[in-house]
Amino acid sequence: MAPTVSFLLIIFISTISYISSESVIRFPSEKDLSGRFHKVRAEDDLYCDSWRLAVETNNIGPWKSVPARCVNFVAKYMGGERYSSDSKVVGKVSSAFAESVELDGDGRDAWVFDIDETLLSNLPYYENNGFGKEIFNETSFNDWVDKAEAPALAASLDLYNELLELGFKIFLLTGRSEHQRNATETNLLLAGYDKWERLILRGSSDQGKLAIIYKSEKRAQLVEEGYRIHGSSGDQWSDLWGHAVASRSFKLPNPMYYIP
Amino acid sequence: MAPTVSFLLIIFISTISYISSESVIRFPSEKDLSGRFHKVRAEDDLYCDSWRLAVETNNIGPWKSVPARCVNFVAKYMGGERYSSDSKVVGKVSSAFAESVELDGDGRDAWVFDIDETLLSNLPYYENNGFGKEIFNETSFNDWVDKAEAPALAASLDLYNELLELGFKIFLLTGRSEHQRNATETNLLLAGYDKWERLILRGSSDQGKLAIIYKSEKRAQLVEEGYRIHGSSGDQWSDLWGHAVASRSFKLPNPMYYIP
Repeated sequence: MAPTVSFLLIIFISTISYISSESVIRFPSEKDLSGRFHKVRAEDDLYCDSWRLAVETNNIGPWKSVPARCVNFVAKYMGGERYSSDSKVVGKVSSAFAESVELDGDGRDAWVFDIDETLLSNLPYYENNGFGKEIFNETSFNDWVDKAEAPALAASLDLYNELLELGFKIFLLTGRSEHQRNATETNLLLAGYDKWERLILRGSSDQGKLAIIYKSEKRAQLVEEGYRIHGSSGDQWSDLWGHAVASRSFKLPNPMYYIP
Repeated sequence: MAPTVSFLLIIFISTISYISSESVIRFPSEKDLSGRFHKVRAEDDLYCDSWRLAVETNNIGPWKSVPARCVNFVAKYMGGERYSSDSKVVGKVSSAFAESVELDGDGRDAWVFDIDETLLSNLPYYENNGFGKEIFNETSFNDWVDKAEAPALAASLDLYNELLELGFKIFLLTGRSEHQRNATETNLLLAGYDKWERLILRGSSDQGKLAIIYKSEKRAQLVEEGYRIHGSSGDQWSDLWGHAVASRSFKLPNPMYYIP
């Protein structure tokens, strides 16, 4: 064999041998070579994952928009398998709790659901509106609500149907307003929800109230009517905390916006 | 050039060209070839990350030990940069809130800290005890407490010192018992904590109470004494919820154990 051939063979074999020694090898891409891109992304991912946890545990407190450095992270999270998996696990633990409840059978065993980012997903809207980067725009969101096109959150639809089978009465308690009743009902039915006991929307006397106050008052009314609120599902702590809280509250993930 | 050389060159160049087209390439390693190892690990990581979120948001409710499939995940999380980053972000948002509080300056502005997995880290103990895989063993944990060797959680030590500088009175409210007072004080001092207003441990009348009850009662006593509890930091919801709660509560991460 000519020396050139031997030389090339040695390079080739040692390259392949190096490649095979690890399952994943990183080679410089254009982006790597262009500078700090990957380092910054990795640091952002670490920080933004911690920011997201602090949002979900309510450590952050009130916030108006997703931090600029976390917008890509949130977009990736919401569109990827993590959001879906996180929602599914919440659905499973809710369902395990529901199965453990001894229902009285008097028609007063209740479960309360929030709607947006709980039963319905507004991800198609937020995909076109910066994934929480922009401050909430009521006009454009209301236009989206009127379209009645929001898909169901798959994990919540499964839970909803199981609760009905178990015999729970389902109450839908939303921050949406009375004038959105028709669009909301249409959307829920199109998304596969059915047989709710009552859909509670903000009436004229509820306007301007913090969600945590408005929702607590409505739950208190249900308790006064004799309902036992065993479970409550929502993506905001203001769906769940306050007074007349459920025996068990289930917080669905939502790193896109905050409602006080 | 001889045909053999040309042939080898073409293979070599096309291999390198393929490698360069993406920044990360996966080649089969022994583990990949051996079967489902990587797939199972990836599925476990996705599930266990969702399980951890459900723990941190208290969706899971009471649990006795880390699920078997998540023990490796928890070990990796606790020992890696994510636990450290998550704790740091909680410290930063706590500190931002503390700076926003207008202190009265009458010596009644209070902050309440839990101790274990809040001020002190028992990670060296849990590293030797399965990272939450095993059900809590009071005897071996008490032996560890007596050693007074737990290091500070770095993020909490920074917050603690800033709170002192801002003028907060610091109360340490722990589920540890009175007989552990000396070991606890020694450990806190060795870890760098100093100048607390009061260290509150379980007395004989507190034994057997749920943590959420015991801690609520002790906070209520502070409020009766005229303290305004602006902030509270703990790794368990039972450190933070109940009654006489702080104006703002900060939940530190802990996927290793649950205290009701």
